[in-house]
Amino acid sequence: MALIVKKFGGSSVADAQRVFNVANIIINDYKKGNDVIVVVSAQGDTTDDLIEKAEEINPAGASKREMDMLLSAGEQISIALLAMAIEKLGCPVISLLGWQAGFNTDSHHSIARIKNLNTERIRNEIAKKNIVVVAGFQGINKYDDITTLGRGGSDTSAVAIAASMNADLCQIYTDVDGVYTADPRKVDTARKMDEIAYDEMLELATLGAQVLNNRSVEMAKKYNVELEVLSSLENKPGTKVKETVKMEKTLIRGVAKDSNVARISVVGLEDTPGVAFKIFNKIAQYKINVDIILQSVGRDSTKDITFTVPRDQGKLAVEAIESIKGGLNYKDIVVEEDVAKISVVGAGMESHPGVASKMFEALYDAGINIQMISTSEIKISVLIDAKYADKAVKVVHDAFIG
Amino acid sequence: MALIVKKFGGSSVADAQRVFNVANIIINDYKKGNDVIVVVSAQGDTTDDLIEKAEEINPAGASKREMDMLLSAGEQISIALLAMAIEKLGCPVISLLGWQAGFNTDSHHSIARIKNLNTERIRNEIAKKNIVVVAGFQGINKYDDITTLGRGGSDTSAVAIAASMNADLCQIYTDVDGVYTADPRKVDTARKMDEIAYDEMLELATLGAQVLNNRSVEMAKKYNVELEVLSSLENKPGTKVKETVKMEKTLIRGVAKDSNVARISVVGLEDTPGVAFKIFNKIAQYKINVDIILQSVGRDSTKDITFTVPRDQGKLAVEAIESIKGGLNYKDIVVEEDVAKISVVGAGMESHPGVASKMFEALYDAGINIQMISTSEIKISVLIDAKYADKAVKVVHDAFIG
Repeated sequence: MALIVKKFGGSSVADAQRVFNVANIIINDYKKGNDVIVVVSAQGDTTDDLIEKAEEINPAGASKREMDMLLSAGEQISIALLAMAIEKLGCPVISLLGWQAGFNTDSHHSIARIKNLNTERIRNEIAKKNIVVVAGFQGINKYDDITTLGRGGSDTSAVAIAASMNADLCQIYTDVDGVYTADPRKVDTARKMDEIAYDEMLELATLGAQVLNNRSVEMAKKYNVELEVLSSLENKPGTKVKETVKMEKTLIRGVAKDSNVARISVVGLEDTPGVAFKIFNKIAQYKINVDIILQSVGRDSTKDITFTVPRDQGKLAVEAIESIKGGLNYKDIVVEEDVAKISVVGAGMESHPGVASKMFEALYDAGINIQMISTSEIKISVLIDAKYADKAVKVVHDAFIG
Repeated sequence: MALIVKKFGGSSVADAQRVFNVANIIINDYKKGNDVIVVVSAQGDTTDDLIEKAEEINPAGASKREMDMLLSAGEQISIALLAMAIEKLGCPVISLLGWQAGFNTDSHHSIARIKNLNTERIRNEIAKKNIVVVAGFQGINKYDDITTLGRGGSDTSAVAIAASMNADLCQIYTDVDGVYTADPRKVDTARKMDEIAYDEMLELATLGAQVLNNRSVEMAKKYNVELEVLSSLENKPGTKVKETVKMEKTLIRGVAKDSNVARISVVGLEDTPGVAFKIFNKIAQYKINVDIILQSVGRDSTKDITFTVPRDQGKLAVEAIESIKGGLNYKDIVVEEDVAKISVVGAGMESHPGVASKMFEALYDAGINIQMISTSEIKISVLIDAKYADKAVKVVHDAFIG
């Protein structure tokens, strides 16, 4: 007998048939004698429909407090329907909203952080042998206002419950059956991994593998919650995410592509001290996440600074720099959005020199030019022309794994 | 400067355009310096859509606790959207769910009663000069579970707030512009009333005038809350509902039709004491509302008992009686659903004999047979064949008012 937390995304509960599919997965584990807590997102397109309604009212953007009030209705609907399906199949169940489940957050509407999770109600319901269905993505702040946790918030909700309840396993159900060494739709030699370390998963998530939300992996690592990524449509084991994993023959764990990148170049900067500080201090004030940074000497004793940001923050980054034009001499700002970042990730690579050169060789052989390079202990990333992105993933994957 | 509570039904906020229409009505009063609290129902068809989703999952009927969880999402969506529209128009506003607004109810899911209303949050928001938009129809019980107040619940929410906050006026916006002496779609001489007494309104609501929910009128009477029924589409005064109203020349206040009636006849009952008690005790145990009761002597020293119930409870009433067949001798039970109840209401009639005879005369002249009669101090009701219902309303209305 174990305590299992299961999280289902919006597509897993998109219609009545899928709701019953999920209900059966839950009941299957419950009938084996396990305690089961379920976290669920809003159904399929509900969130998009609600956003559309809000945009009809205020295209410039409603207040975040009211957006949270609106969007959190989506999970309320899905938990009630899932509970009804479990009832119908004859098992005891109760649905709980974020605040009923004890999610107390800070007041940053739309991107709230969990401050604490009061599990009293969940524990009581589990003690009554109820299956507990919790609305993901939502909580309340100290004023009793509803907050939402931002992108991937339901994953975070699930891991938070698993951590607070000392769950034996936290299963994240998605529409893929695990974590692959590369996108299996693009690379036919991609393999599903049985296990992956938290750090490797974090790099892959950051790099656009998009299987698991980063905050939830960070939290799982911090509280040592064993995760499993698996499919709600196929009944087979997925990929376990944990602290240490068995060594495998391959050096690298996966190859990821991130197309959500823009490259910003500030060209012809006066070569005086403090230029980089001025730029990145302002960028930080605008709350823009900078990834790779490259500084190079330009002509005429000027220099260029190039960096990458998430694509949708490209224009904002230009704005940020233009806002300090008075205190910063430069010739031009160039924004390039047709770029992609390709990364190899693997905890083994730090003790194995030659990973970088093997990657660069594979790209060179394929005639793909490298624009920027960034490395960490368990990752090597390169920026390339977006049109070669899929090809690059394939040739790099083949060089290491295929 | 006054404190005004305004309630808008689902059709008043059915789409973005109507939401803005309502927002403008609210802002108009707010800008005059009034404090404004708004109670709103779920948008247009939202509730029906949610019920449909639930029926897809469990056609036999989900638990009421989960239905309340599901349906209360409807008002959550509408309060957020209305608040966004008010924001967009530049006024300070905050939306509150039932539990945030302090609605504490008993645990009778789907038909919960308000136990108390903790107005602290509403008072704080009013003190901050916010327009307060409250989700009607919903509250929480002592376990922190969401409850709903049943049919017309948003009216009840509005009157409860008006009573607790000592509001100067509680305006109920509908798609009609007030209370009429008869249904204006059926009777072209029907007149809108400027004022009507609580008791008269109660009789009219019970009798199927369906402008205001009965529980809300009862509560308004109990706490002396002045109500106004008016249209959200036309900017003109509606009908005020209050304790005492000016005497008018007409004896009667209105003519109402109630088609939601079934007549049950228990025929050939043994003529022994306690028969009526046995029947109506059992009917009460089944929680069936009995309206008119008629007992008559039948043939062969038997008697018949005939009574009316809401149409959808007709079958249940038959079940109730059949369940005591062992202790009750009768020949047959006859259910007649093609009946309607026509009533005249007016506080003035008790001091004016002849109202009943004038009503019966009008029906006789029109060739309409009366099946049953019931009277109270301010009301006379007759049961007739359903197919003559509209004609009956017209001839009775013309006799008194037209």
